[in-house]
Amino acid sequence: MKAYLAGPDVFLPHAVANAAAKIAICAKYGIQGLAPLNEEIGALAALPDEEAWRVIYGKDIAMMQECDIIIANLTPFRSTSADAGTLIEVGWFLGQSKPVFGYSNSAEPFATRSHFYLSAIADPIPGLAVEGFGLPDNLMIAGAVAYGGGLALTLPADGVSRAFDALDVFETCTEAAAAKLLGGKGR
Amino acid sequence: MKAYLAGPDVFLPHAVANAAAKIAICAKYGIQGLAPLNEEIGALAALPDEEAWRVIYGKDIAMMQECDIIIANLTPFRSTSADAGTLIEVGWFLGQSKPVFGYSNSAEPFATRSHFYLSAIADPIPGLAVEGFGLPDNLMIAGAVAYGGGLALTLPADGVSRAFDALDVFETCTEAAAAKLLGGKGR
Repeated sequence: MKAYLAGPDVFLPHAVANAAAKIAICAKYGIQGLAPLNEEIGALAALPDEEAWRVIYGKDIAMMQECDIIIANLTPFRSTSADAGTLIEVGWFLGQSKPVFGYSNSAEPFATRSHFYLSAIADPIPGLAVEGFGLPDNLMIAGAVAYGGGLALTLPADGVSRAFDALDVFETCTEAAAAKLLGGKGR
Repeated sequence: MKAYLAGPDVFLPHAVANAAAKIAICAKYGIQGLAPLNEEIGALAALPDEEAWRVIYGKDIAMMQECDIIIANLTPFRSTSADAGTLIEVGWFLGQSKPVFGYSNSAEPFATRSHFYLSAIADPIPGLAVEGFGLPDNLMIAGAVAYGGGLALTLPADGVSRAFDALDVFETCTEAAAAKLLGGKGR
């Protein structure tokens, strides 16, 4: 079973080492992890912008098509919500009826982050609603994970937010995905 | 042809009037617009949070299944990027191979917004990359629209950002979608 390892992890200064660590964790649970690293495109830096982004997009879509499931890092990224590109990918897997799993290293509810954001950067017009429901992010994300993969978004079990690049919540999520789909065969 | 009118428009204080205006614009071009308003769920306020969000999710997914295309408001929302729920929906249409159209009322490039965000709220760890490419948002969004619907993300043609709830860029996008799929029959 191949898992697309989506997330803003690609923006990490140590993206290659982070991907290797995630792939090793997946292997522990019988899952083959595939990470959409741009470092694999040798000639990328030589391409003009208008070509470069299309090459990355095509490479990522091809990798998504190759994978059976997505395990998405839905930790908030420069936003009240998860990384934008990751959300497109989560929606794509949901639309393809391929199982969706996700985790967040943040223990903070969406509404708390929204109010914090509004205290730092005002809304463009007054009166825009803040979504509640006590969820970790927008309800379409909660639903994509809950209904797409059959498990809730994996959060820090002790209620303490992790470092942006911590991997223990990812491992809990990966283990749960393997138990759900492989019956724990990978252990 | 039915269009799912995705966007953070549902959070507007005048969400119902905004949806009616969008539906009227769609009709001008031969498209039946469907807006995922929560106001249509009468008993919503009486439900506990854990049930309420699931009712909204189920209603939105059913409306997405009913629609042939998506016209997404991808104006940045409390973020460097578009609204999180809208991005799940865009990805879903792409995964379903249903045409994706989108617009933004912001004329600002993604990288400019990212740097502004970083000046107001720091990144959780140093050294995270800012995506460039001169695009209006994350490349997966640009790609979903370009490859999903065959048109670029519709932006203010004069390069001047609009009010968050302005509808002229939406109308340009809707007219282009109709011309692409209906051959302009709706005119």
